[in-house]
Amino acid sequence: MKQTIGISELLEGKKLHELKELAAGLNPTDIAEEFENLTEQERAAVFRSLPKDVAADVFSYMSPETQENLISFLTDPELSHIVNDLFLDDAVDFIEEMPANVVKRVLKNASEDTRKQINQLLQYREDSAGSIMTTEYVDLKEDMTVESAFSRIRAVGMDKETIYTCYVVDGRRVLDGVITVRTLLLAKPGDRIGDVMNRNPIYAVTDDDREAVAELFQKYDLIALPVVDTERHLVGIITVDDVMEVLEEENTEDFYKMAAMVPTDEAYLASGVFELAKKRIFWLMVLMISAFFTGSIITRYEEMLALFPALFAAVPMLMDTGGNAGSQSSTIIIRSLALDELRISDAPRILWKEVRIGAIVGTALCATNVAFKWASGVDIRVSAAIGASLFATVVLAKITGSMLPLLAKALKLDPALMAAPIITTLVDAGGLVLYFRVAKLMMGIR
Amino acid sequence: MKQTIGISELLEGKKLHELKELAAGLNPTDIAEEFENLTEQERAAVFRSLPKDVAADVFSYMSPETQENLISFLTDPELSHIVNDLFLDDAVDFIEEMPANVVKRVLKNASEDTRKQINQLLQYREDSAGSIMTTEYVDLKEDMTVESAFSRIRAVGMDKETIYTCYVVDGRRVLDGVITVRTLLLAKPGDRIGDVMNRNPIYAVTDDDREAVAELFQKYDLIALPVVDTERHLVGIITVDDVMEVLEEENTEDFYKMAAMVPTDEAYLASGVFELAKKRIFWLMVLMISAFFTGSIITRYEEMLALFPALFAAVPMLMDTGGNAGSQSSTIIIRSLALDELRISDAPRILWKEVRIGAIVGTALCATNVAFKWASGVDIRVSAAIGASLFATVVLAKITGSMLPLLAKALKLDPALMAAPIITTLVDAGGLVLYFRVAKLMMGIR
Repeated sequence: MKQTIGISELLEGKKLHELKELAAGLNPTDIAEEFENLTEQERAAVFRSLPKDVAADVFSYMSPETQENLISFLTDPELSHIVNDLFLDDAVDFIEEMPANVVKRVLKNASEDTRKQINQLLQYREDSAGSIMTTEYVDLKEDMTVESAFSRIRAVGMDKETIYTCYVVDGRRVLDGVITVRTLLLAKPGDRIGDVMNRNPIYAVTDDDREAVAELFQKYDLIALPVVDTERHLVGIITVDDVMEVLEEENTEDFYKMAAMVPTDEAYLASGVFELAKKRIFWLMVLMISAFFTGSIITRYEEMLALFPALFAAVPMLMDTGGNAGSQSSTIIIRSLALDELRISDAPRILWKEVRIGAIVGTALCATNVAFKWASGVDIRVSAAIGASLFATVVLAKITGSMLPLLAKALKLDPALMAAPIITTLVDAGGLVLYFRVAKLMMGIR
Repeated sequence: MKQTIGISELLEGKKLHELKELAAGLNPTDIAEEFENLTEQERAAVFRSLPKDVAADVFSYMSPETQENLISFLTDPELSHIVNDLFLDDAVDFIEEMPANVVKRVLKNASEDTRKQINQLLQYREDSAGSIMTTEYVDLKEDMTVESAFSRIRAVGMDKETIYTCYVVDGRRVLDGVITVRTLLLAKPGDRIGDVMNRNPIYAVTDDDREAVAELFQKYDLIALPVVDTERHLVGIITVDDVMEVLEEENTEDFYKMAAMVPTDEAYLASGVFELAKKRIFWLMVLMISAFFTGSIITRYEEMLALFPALFAAVPMLMDTGGNAGSQSSTIIIRSLALDELRISDAPRILWKEVRIGAIVGTALCATNVAFKWASGVDIRVSAAIGASLFATVVLAKITGSMLPLLAKALKLDPALMAAPIITTLVDAGGLVLYFRVAKLMMGIR
């Protein structure tokens, strides 16, 4: 499935001419990947040997580190060529990753028009539709014919990210409709665009959340989406490849949050140790301090524990099982909320479902546990206390795990925060109180 | 952003004619969504009033429950129309969700050609490229001209899932190349397809993993991908909308696995209680039994605990912090592996990074902890034992959490299994042994 390349080998033989031929038949992504393995000196040489029309494309697929390193070896005119040739959204992505002095040099070398457009795109809120759009699309007018539309696509379309959906605007750039090349191909050359276009296109507003944009793509199976400002002026389009990236980033964010970390979109190996530690320490600290309270519960039962030390042995099992049972539920609910499969109004149905699941799972675990304890000759009262608390802890865990993400959602907080770590801490405290109370009863301690 | 609909309102007024007009201006996805809220009787009535060319499209967007319910009200000829009109991959998705008797009726009503193709698609391994492809694409021959290619696209393309990439095959259907409509538009009408097509297309083989296919789409920013058999015969194509679904499903699978559940692609509310319990019980049981061993460690230190019950109060905090610290690391590594950002050979770098992060985080937590304990007047030896073990547990957790997913990957197991639940159980045991040993030393117990 992967094409084989030998850039390094050709370089060693100084065969730059062959390199040029080789590059012409390769995918820009694959060429960019090869750059990661070249030395700093080689990079500039190979980059200069790339065909002009491929160079910017290859550049857009490199890692930020390689991009920064490479342009430090390039002349101003060379840099200027890249910046003006990049798709605008790729240029913005690249600039956002560069340190201030590099950004300055890049913008200085951009054409005035490019610089203006880049500056405009840089202003949109991170995570908004505006931040992932590009301003390069094919625009048509209602009174064009299909034939003239095709001429326009041929004339301007080759530099646009997609030509397969074209956008019809009026004199004030208000979005009137969209038309696909599929429709254009089926129409007669003389048909008026206004008569064959779709007048009710799906669209996003610049300030919409990029997650909502991704949902539109999934729901309507789109490959591109127009973005308008609050007065319905067309300001850009979003293409499906950028949406796939958004999806992966949003999923990564959820994974991080659910493991009690501050999300980041920096690659692991590229991040510094202190930076990584900083992302992890806040929640660990909060959770540790919460666990002090669980500890203080135990302190209240110290006398009983001193009398029946066998009660200690079940604590890890109770805590772990409670935490695991709770995080199963919270994970399902958080994920279903993220996929828009559940609403807050489903809470009663979910609660009833989880209680029953908890009862089934709790019974099975309790039976296994009692059997084990019985086989190892544990005091029957201890064993009964453990079994009963285990059952109750599992049910409690299922309720807590399923309801807290819904509560968070209702309070407009991110449900992903109500994941394993917090659920575990809460269920631990509840489960241990249950356990010690039951044990006290069983042991006949007042 | 969403279009407003009033299907139910129109139905109440029996205005089926207006309904027809309304439906013509709506997106099939939105019409399908409305069906979920209709009564069983209404569904058949509204469905019959839909324009013929929209009906199958709307059908493909309904939930399996609604699909099954609706077709039980339809006649055989009506069903036949839908099945033959569906895109083949949608037909396969639908059939896979139906009970056996419904499948029989559906296939009986499919045209012979459709039935043959459906049966062929049903044979591919779940999670393979073959299982998500469709057999509807535009094929061209090398010696066609650009002009005749456009004629062919106009003639056959309207029923195909995508026309924007066309596939060039020889007489034995071997894939020779691909050509996009963009290239066709730029070429001269008389150009030979063989001279302007891309002869090195990215492609997948039917048995490739669908996750690998999704990676190809992301890497090369594709909107469609040809699928060939082992002899390079073109057998189908995969489109980007199906790949987005794969991405979300694969992510959901990872979330489930990482929370110790057997993954499922059924929606939560549509799943039965026993079914859900079954997906959760296996890992809970395994983890509970593992926790018995942690418990048995405690048993060995019962005497010491009876003498110094204050030692016990720190157990929940140590266990929770260890578990959280470990699952942070395992989550980062599992996610980075899934996104192909890490390799097994990075293990030494990762280990060194995690040890340093563990030392930083551990120091901060340890300091906070000792300060708290000191403020609450805890025995200095107990406090020192807790602080030292906390530090060691965090470092141990970071090492375990980061290395086990890599080990799983090296053993060709799914790294996602090495997530919070297992890490917590392992770190718990290790952390407690450390804690009790240190405490024993501090307390001067032999």
